[in-house]
Amino acid sequence: MTTTLVRGKHVLCEAGTNASQSTVITDGAVFQRDGVIEAVGAYDAIKATHQADEEIGGPGFVVMPGLVNAHHHGRGVSTFQTGCTDGCLETWILAGWNRRPHDQYLMTLYTAIQMLESGTTTVMYNHSQTPTSGLEEDVDQVLRGFTAAGMRTAFSVYFRGQNRVVYEDDQQFLSRLPGDLAQDLRVYLAAVDLTETDYFTLFESLHRRYASSPESRVSVLLSPSNVQWASDDFLLRTKEYAKRYQAAVHMHLVESWYQKEFGIRTWGRTPVQHLADLEFLGPELSCAHSVWVTEKDIELLAGSGTTVCHNPSSNLRLKNGIAPVNTMLVSGINVAIGTDSTAINDDDDMIQEMRLSAKLHRQPGLDRPAVNSHQVLRMATANAARPTSFQGKIGVLEPGRFADMVLLDFSALEEPYLDPDIDVVDAVLYRGKASHVDTVMIQGEVVVRNGSFVKVDKAEVLRELREHFARPQEAATSRNRQMVQRLMPFVEDFYRDWQPPADQPHYLYNSRA
Amino acid sequence: MTTTLVRGKHVLCEAGTNASQSTVITDGAVFQRDGVIEAVGAYDAIKATHQADEEIGGPGFVVMPGLVNAHHHGRGVSTFQTGCTDGCLETWILAGWNRRPHDQYLMTLYTAIQMLESGTTTVMYNHSQTPTSGLEEDVDQVLRGFTAAGMRTAFSVYFRGQNRVVYEDDQQFLSRLPGDLAQDLRVYLAAVDLTETDYFTLFESLHRRYASSPESRVSVLLSPSNVQWASDDFLLRTKEYAKRYQAAVHMHLVESWYQKEFGIRTWGRTPVQHLADLEFLGPELSCAHSVWVTEKDIELLAGSGTTVCHNPSSNLRLKNGIAPVNTMLVSGINVAIGTDSTAINDDDDMIQEMRLSAKLHRQPGLDRPAVNSHQVLRMATANAARPTSFQGKIGVLEPGRFADMVLLDFSALEEPYLDPDIDVVDAVLYRGKASHVDTVMIQGEVVVRNGSFVKVDKAEVLRELREHFARPQEAATSRNRQMVQRLMPFVEDFYRDWQPPADQPHYLYNSRA
Repeated sequence: MTTTLVRGKHVLCEAGTNASQSTVITDGAVFQRDGVIEAVGAYDAIKATHQADEEIGGPGFVVMPGLVNAHHHGRGVSTFQTGCTDGCLETWILAGWNRRPHDQYLMTLYTAIQMLESGTTTVMYNHSQTPTSGLEEDVDQVLRGFTAAGMRTAFSVYFRGQNRVVYEDDQQFLSRLPGDLAQDLRVYLAAVDLTETDYFTLFESLHRRYASSPESRVSVLLSPSNVQWASDDFLLRTKEYAKRYQAAVHMHLVESWYQKEFGIRTWGRTPVQHLADLEFLGPELSCAHSVWVTEKDIELLAGSGTTVCHNPSSNLRLKNGIAPVNTMLVSGINVAIGTDSTAINDDDDMIQEMRLSAKLHRQPGLDRPAVNSHQVLRMATANAARPTSFQGKIGVLEPGRFADMVLLDFSALEEPYLDPDIDVVDAVLYRGKASHVDTVMIQGEVVVRNGSFVKVDKAEVLRELREHFARPQEAATSRNRQMVQRLMPFVEDFYRDWQPPADQPHYLYNSRA
Repeated sequence: MTTTLVRGKHVLCEAGTNASQSTVITDGAVFQRDGVIEAVGAYDAIKATHQADEEIGGPGFVVMPGLVNAHHHGRGVSTFQTGCTDGCLETWILAGWNRRPHDQYLMTLYTAIQMLESGTTTVMYNHSQTPTSGLEEDVDQVLRGFTAAGMRTAFSVYFRGQNRVVYEDDQQFLSRLPGDLAQDLRVYLAAVDLTETDYFTLFESLHRRYASSPESRVSVLLSPSNVQWASDDFLLRTKEYAKRYQAAVHMHLVESWYQKEFGIRTWGRTPVQHLADLEFLGPELSCAHSVWVTEKDIELLAGSGTTVCHNPSSNLRLKNGIAPVNTMLVSGINVAIGTDSTAINDDDDMIQEMRLSAKLHRQPGLDRPAVNSHQVLRMATANAARPTSFQGKIGVLEPGRFADMVLLDFSALEEPYLDPDIDVVDAVLYRGKASHVDTVMIQGEVVVRNGSFVKVDKAEVLRELREHFARPQEAATSRNRQMVQRLMPFVEDFYRDWQPPADQPHYLYNSRA
């Protein structure tokens, strides 16, 4: 039995859609026992009625729910660091094949440390389809990494079964390549081939092994990677499994204009409409990106209770645009926020990702919508909790929920002065930085103290990563890089006549006329 | 006589428009004597031929030109910290009247410290029209602050002579107000009244006192605040003074859609076209913001050699949109970058401002433009140098220019690994942070060492600011705040029927159809 009293000058219990809808306690405290919040209230009252093993925080801190990164692919040493500069999504994915193999455990530990030190307690981790021969072992290493870091994880492996190089049938694309290049590509793709049946068997095994106890910090989700990458049959089977296991489903959706255009060309309708026609949308589903949604698509997503995971940094970096979040919010969509392992500063900092979200959706015009600080904090806490399978258990500081919280050094954030009329959530959203994160607690366990990770030796993790990458480039990596270089013109050529439109934005940021 | 040898693993001498146009020396060095660069080259060669009093940097650093913040209004303790949350520009300006009076010297010292610690060596500082009775004294305090900090300053006082509350004649606006409110506003405006003649006399005095020696770190510019705030007569006189004194001119331009609309309603043409008709555009002119420029406006700016100072954070925060920088660059406009004292993290960090610039202009579509890292670094160095009156003297590391430079801890930036194929300018633009700034030199003088400001006691500056703002709110501030609250509905009402358009963007970030 361990108990903790967590004190803050301000306790942000729950972010609402505006200041009057949020619950904030001044000079407040949270009392937790064995990982579960037992009481929240005024510090004096909680202190008088609860005996704690330890008291943390104090009048110089803000206490808030741990942030939830609602879309992530791991990595630690970023895609950029491993040699891949930002491009257009469709060519960047190909360039990503240039990545060197890495130690899944170490990389996961490092990405977790980075996220924890910047205030994220839960991650929606979506595992890339690594070579099938080692897939289950890779997954175990990833989950061993998150577990060692103490991080809560909504875990999924994504499934890509078709149109894996460009948005057309693999065989058709292969048929246009010179023979030797086609042969190399066939070998590359065969290594990541995964049957639908094997996918669902893997899901069942992971679900049984990792997500069966109510105290587990791991939930297991299903994930068709995106509509153009999974057959209708796979989507329908996913829906069945989701029902059978009460499991959530996570996917990518109209991340790029090209993905929307694929739907129009293939089915004569948008991908969202296609999902609606398959009765695939629903409250168990969360969709990353969702940049290229039409007004009608937004209605369909809202009406079905589907969550959208907004990834503003990634959408800019990979030339996908800006998702119409204001329109989504007005329609009632549950919008979450995630870094997609491609945050603006290349560091998976959710505080910075909230900031970018807060600034990006300020539409020109006095009467035009702009997200407020409370909405954005809610997107990264309560809204983001919903698709994780920990809904009702995290994202809000209230009795009965897990004790997942973050303490920010509010004195440093105010330095040297903050007008007393400023709302505390505004203060966090305008000025909070990863460097203000002092303490992070997950399920009652302190994993970051004084801004530093305490569960494993970070310097040692960095040393091992440095050593790993200092090795000479693997022969397989060199071969991949040559193949990618030869493939690139064929990929670019495929999209040559796909020309994005120029008009009818959801919001107007500037005008040529 | 003092001499310094500055060594870097990479010396970014000059940022070009792409990697092949940039000058980067691996294991390079810069040798400076008495504030002027004497030699740049390979470390071994420079070391062998130049005897230095001190050697700084080393193989763990990147050396680059000091950053130039091309549009700034000072402050230190931000507008937000002093009680003013972001709004739409037109109401935010009014809300800014809520600010408390402050010590100009202390505030300038603090804003300079923040900029220096994040790698900015030169600031284009545009002084708000503070009350006329103390204006010259205020200006002296500001310049004393920048001088004490050692910062290079392109200084101007802006002139606002008309349409000061909304974009119509002050008397006309006053005539719609209740008598007592009109009277309060008349008193408020009278305090900042400045005649055109007094403005130019002040300019001449400042030019003589601060900008006469070639070693001075201060240049003095002219500044009509914006077309709707200055008469045509004032603009024409400005042009004359600029010619007479070989002085540069700095202004705001179509920051908001409302300012463009003002032009259409007033002259039947855009503000840029109006300036072109007055023959006001030219290479001596730099315009902040310039968000709402048409294709034709861009041609006019490009053809005249006018500089645009891009302020991406401010444009988002104040609901002004996103300037069409890609189109400007294609047209050949000299684009600089500035924080406008309203940076995304509320801290005037130019490295973060460069990052935002780099990410914001990545247009969806494989063949659509996206700024590259070299262009962005150039915007914050060589391009930004041009409108400061220090053109040819800063922004590039080459013999004959002032020794203004920044050393970044490249080992920390790479941590734990960076693929050797990654371009060093990409590395800085993707991953550089203010916390990597190790050393800052201005005109040969080291002002930041090991990441900390060395010329005055920062802790003491913060202590004095804290003490200043801890005082009870001034009676005048309380009166202003009451007046602002009463005025706000009249301001909002004025713009009620000014409705921004919905179509014809320069770039499409999303689509409703």
